[in-house]
Amino acid sequence: MIYFNNDYAEGCHEKVLQALAETNLIQTPGYGEDAYCRRAAEKIRALCAAPEAAVHFLVGGTQTNFTVIDAALRPHQGALCAVTGHIHVHETGAVEATGHKVLTVPSADGKITAAQVAEVVKAHRADSSFEHMVQPKLVYISNPTELGTLYSLAELEELSQTCRELGLYLFLDGARLGYGLMAKGNDVTLPDIARLCDVFYIGGTKVGALFGEAVVIPNAALAEDFRYLIKQHGGMLAKGRLLGVQFDTLMTDNLYFDIAAHADRLADKLRQTFEELHVPFLVPGVTNQLFPILPDAVLDKLSEHFVFCEQQRVDETHRAVRFCTSWATRPEDLEALCEALCQLKVES
Amino acid sequence: MIYFNNDYAEGCHEKVLQALAETNLIQTPGYGEDAYCRRAAEKIRALCAAPEAAVHFLVGGTQTNFTVIDAALRPHQGALCAVTGHIHVHETGAVEATGHKVLTVPSADGKITAAQVAEVVKAHRADSSFEHMVQPKLVYISNPTELGTLYSLAELEELSQTCRELGLYLFLDGARLGYGLMAKGNDVTLPDIARLCDVFYIGGTKVGALFGEAVVIPNAALAEDFRYLIKQHGGMLAKGRLLGVQFDTLMTDNLYFDIAAHADRLADKLRQTFEELHVPFLVPGVTNQLFPILPDAVLDKLSEHFVFCEQQRVDETHRAVRFCTSWATRPEDLEALCEALCQLKVES
Amino acid sequence: MIYFNNDYAEGCHEKVLQALAETNLIQTPGYGEDAYCRRAAEKIRALCAAPEAAVHFLVGGTQTNFTVIDAALRPHQGALCAVTGHIHVHETGAVEATGHKVLTVPSADGKITAAQVAEVVKAHRADSSFEHMVQPKLVYISNPTELGTLYSLAELEELSQTCRELGLYLFLDGARLGYGLMAKGNDVTLPDIARLCDVFYIGGTKVGALFGEAVVIPNAALAEDFRYLIKQHGGMLAKGRLLGVQFDTLMTDNLYFDIAAHADRLADKLRQTFEELHVPFLVPGVTNQLFPILPDAVLDKLSEHFVFCEQQRVDETHRAVRFCTSWATRPEDLEALCEALCQLKVES
Amino acid sequence: MIYFNNDYAEGCHEKVLQALAETNLIQTPGYGEDAYCRRAAEKIRALCAAPEAAVHFLVGGTQTNFTVIDAALRPHQGALCAVTGHIHVHETGAVEATGHKVLTVPSADGKITAAQVAEVVKAHRADSSFEHMVQPKLVYISNPTELGTLYSLAELEELSQTCRELGLYLFLDGARLGYGLMAKGNDVTLPDIARLCDVFYIGGTKVGALFGEAVVIPNAALAEDFRYLIKQHGGMLAKGRLLGVQFDTLMTDNLYFDIAAHADRLADKLRQTFEELHVPFLVPGVTNQLFPILPDAVLDKLSEHFVFCEQQRVDETHRAVRFCTSWATRPEDLEALCEALCQLKVES
Repeated sequence: MIYFNNDYAEGCHEKVLQALAETNLIQTPGYGEDAYCRRAAEKIRALCAAPEAAVHFLVGGTQTNFTVIDAALRPHQGALCAVTGHIHVHETGAVEATGHKVLTVPSADGKITAAQVAEVVKAHRADSSFEHMVQPKLVYISNPTELGTLYSLAELEELSQTCRELGLYLFLDGARLGYGLMAKGNDVTLPDIARLCDVFYIGGTKVGALFGEAVVIPNAALAEDFRYLIKQHGGMLAKGRLLGVQFDTLMTDNLYFDIAAHADRLADKLRQTFEELHVPFLVPGVTNQLFPILPDAVLDKLSEHFVFCEQQRVDETHRAVRFCTSWATRPEDLEALCEALCQLKVES
Repeated sequence: MIYFNNDYAEGCHEKVLQALAETNLIQTPGYGEDAYCRRAAEKIRALCAAPEAAVHFLVGGTQTNFTVIDAALRPHQGALCAVTGHIHVHETGAVEATGHKVLTVPSADGKITAAQVAEVVKAHRADSSFEHMVQPKLVYISNPTELGTLYSLAELEELSQTCRELGLYLFLDGARLGYGLMAKGNDVTLPDIARLCDVFYIGGTKVGALFGEAVVIPNAALAEDFRYLIKQHGGMLAKGRLLGVQFDTLMTDNLYFDIAAHADRLADKLRQTFEELHVPFLVPGVTNQLFPILPDAVLDKLSEHFVFCEQQRVDETHRAVRFCTSWATRPEDLEALCEALCQLKVES
Repeated sequence: MIYFNNDYAEGCHEKVLQALAETNLIQTPGYGEDAYCRRAAEKIRALCAAPEAAVHFLVGGTQTNFTVIDAALRPHQGALCAVTGHIHVHETGAVEATGHKVLTVPSADGKITAAQVAEVVKAHRADSSFEHMVQPKLVYISNPTELGTLYSLAELEELSQTCRELGLYLFLDGARLGYGLMAKGNDVTLPDIARLCDVFYIGGTKVGALFGEAVVIPNAALAEDFRYLIKQHGGMLAKGRLLGVQFDTLMTDNLYFDIAAHADRLADKLRQTFEELHVPFLVPGVTNQLFPILPDAVLDKLSEHFVFCEQQRVDETHRAVRFCTSWATRPEDLEALCEALCQLKVES
Repeated sequence: MIYFNNDYAEGCHEKVLQALAETNLIQTPGYGEDAYCRRAAEKIRALCAAPEAAVHFLVGGTQTNFTVIDAALRPHQGALCAVTGHIHVHETGAVEATGHKVLTVPSADGKITAAQVAEVVKAHRADSSFEHMVQPKLVYISNPTELGTLYSLAELEELSQTCRELGLYLFLDGARLGYGLMAKGNDVTLPDIARLCDVFYIGGTKVGALFGEAVVIPNAALAEDFRYLIKQHGGMLAKGRLLGVQFDTLMTDNLYFDIAAHADRLADKLRQTFEELHVPFLVPGVTNQLFPILPDAVLDKLSEHFVFCEQQRVDETHRAVRFCTSWATRPEDLEALCEALCQLKVES
């Protein structure tokens, strides 16, 4: 069986593993106050052109999301996101467990628009009983989104401007950020994100690390006392250096970006194959996640050799599924998948 | 100005006031452990034909909702309700502040069906990553709903059976229960509710009391240690006897039901007036809340003498608004409203 | 039986009841946005010489404590209080239920000193792993304390100065504030409290109201969005006017202060009786709560006619108990108690 | 500089690293549903002689503590521990952040006795206003404790029996369990712990793993839906196999126990050195943590070459400090420390 069901089926990139091995017996201070963390943070600040930004390393995505949101909000405030947002759907109510409601707006492609944000906030403020409703205070977006789509620079600029005008924070979940930054047609850079967001993170777990997310906080108001929050929410590793070593390696010699580009290239090839076979997509995508709509019969056949992810039923005989490439995907495996698709299609 | 905007614009029924005055200087134990509370609880158990049910008195509806839900759920469990549910829309995230997500299903009339509950629960259990999502464990319904509609006995039976089969609790918010029980066409009784729900409350604030909600817990599993929860959530009055005295009075000589019937009768008359004038309704209603759709011009005129509640814009020239009658509504005021409507209609 | 066990055994002062009756059928807006609340708030601001302070009315003490503390703190911050503090001991963990730790310092008399606060904060900041501990951010004091003692103006000035120097909020729980303000020897005024505290409340439940606490927030930073917090925490009465009417009455013609002085005078007389009988006290007190240490035999006899409150065992044959007077205590009942004490003492 | 300040200054044991490397590119399902986790759990169940126990792997100690406690308690219930307990002192209020109060009893040696538990629970139940106080429901102990002391089997039996009689859960934090199990004089085994506790964990972070704690839940009532809780609290690694691989390795061929014994042997040697030099201890200890009381002058000298941990000032010229050995401590470094101590002592 070859796995295309997600981008976290393997361990980590060999260079990351090597760095962990090389530093393994070096003694360091605990809890992220070591030289590796400092160096990784320095590199990230440089890559983001954000010399004043705070940088912290947490273990996983859900943890990062609820820690950031809980740090940013007062009790009566909520996070606004697309109805497909990871915090709304797939984190077992972790944000609500910190006491905050997740407010949603409809979305077909996983994105949220500046206009939607403005409409929600204005409607809230115009309501005569606004104090009986949760106050929208933070906008949560994922880039790439849960559906593999990307914000354009123009969209991000507009969202950011709207948030600032309305006094909301903009938080970008970058669990798959590398795959977004390196995607064909992407026009958003790390310095753009650091300039336009109040807080965001660069995902490691899905892009070459064993685990780890690098939180960048350009807005100083959100950075205060953040380490207390990490500790309280269980995100402060005794051996914090593990995160520093990993991100230090990933942010050296363009590694993070190169391995993300690898995944995007393979996904691109897979997309072309689908297109040539006239397979429609649930949403158009340019990153490492593709959501083709295929006949049940084809999927049954495919599943004899390949693992993919169920997304949703489309009609009585078709389902949308997810195929993921990753930093670890072997070109020959992708090749095998494309061939299988071509053969199946002919048969069907 | 005459107020029809809600059912809590006045204080309390004169008999309630009188009882408070008569008992005012009698010394009693605090925190609801007095004879008045015991007597009121006894009467409620009798009216509900639920001799084993626990009965507690809390101060207000939001408080009651989050106390009951927090008492019933484990951290990873959520409350399921109609998208119009009061806990979802109008309680400033009080349920989420206790750590629990509110899950919603669509609803045009404020109600939720057994089929919807079953679908949500089955979809949850069938999902391969169900542990990444909040577990639906309690169904929250309002009766009457926020839109003034009522569950039929058949609907309630079906909901209850579905909840029991699936291992969910059924919680009925009865903030306006009196108006529902006495409404024309209602076929649900207090014993029905006590038999079919795990926990519910009989609203006092909107039906003749100064304040107060009587929580009835037929399901013994939900009753354990409930007083701790009341205290922790700020619902335990030092002078708990105030709640006992009020409910004791309301539950004596049918007072609660008579005054609710009064409001329903006046609402019925208002509805007939609207119907005669061919005014459509946002939703059909038989209780003390009516949601007619009227031209802006008519509403502007009306608002010179009457206060009502904005509900939603329907089209460019029409809005749905809410008119409420209550135990305190004076027949002559209702008469004046009907006359004004007839005159305006003629003019318009 | 005559009750001296607490100061909430009766309903409310007759003038309060009369005001509730007189306004009962007047229609007002809900949720505390009525003219009575505005007027009561105005009077309180004037009495506090704090024209800019926000004033809100909540239902009870526990509710007020956790609402204020939750409004003031970020997730990693805690409230510091005496080990005897009501929030630490007698609120079923209501503050912790909002996510915040209660930090304590030892106290023999219910009070906390500026030096203790400074020591805790300095130790926290000096600790190399301070981020692993809850950050003290708010000092909670009760005045009178749970043991009936009072802060002097000098003590309060010093506490306030220390808090301001260290960046902590000072929150005064005034559940029995009236009894403190009118006590013999008290040198603290409402304007002093408004000047020295960031937030405090004037208790109504124990001083003549049916229920209700008036929160005063001189520190504008703590006032922002406070109504959302009240709603979320279940403290916003639909008929908010009930609180306005009560406080409006209590703050008119010195009523609140006169009835508190009545209780203090009776307590004073009782204290003199104890002193004449050479009965020692657990703590010296000047307000309406007294904590005499009496032989078990005497207490057994007393309990045939009087109800008092158990405080703690002192030795094998003596217990400390609590006697409370209140705005409602009848002079003849106090007289009876004093006589019984004199007779018992003679006998014993 | 040689570090003796803690037991998490290095990465992981070489065999653990090797296993991570060997399995690095193998594709597995995510979120702990892989074969490594299953195998590690199987081995742990066997070692604990608890074939029915649930076993889960979490990332760190604080996370494990608040996840277990939040899973076990209803909102009004609290965790009882020694005043030195890690959850009370060093987790930034993480337990309180889930809404639960930490209740404490005094302790000089880090341990809590069955008699203390019984006393707290009986006092709670005997109090007439018990519902105004947090209900003790879970006893949290650490073994070894934060002061390096150990529970004897007799003490643990008694604690367990008391908890069961009183209806409380017993939760053992085994962050350093290996060092305890292998300590000279220890008479407690893993099967004992599994038999006597409702839930406990076997710490990996401090005993040879990069990170990770293995939670064992012999009490089935606490195991229900535990994976939801892990996910909600941020403890579910996408690459859960990392935890499985590590614990699988540690639990193979006695590795975990051998490396713990290594640390204990070195600590034993250090203790003997202190004893020969007549250096007193803050508490007597047999595990890998020692708390000697030394003159400031000696500590100043020592700190030129060795890193240790400040514990507390004892008198004007002496401080208690902590020295830790670990699975990674090199015998020659321990030798160097002992020699330095002997020389300094002669000089002083």
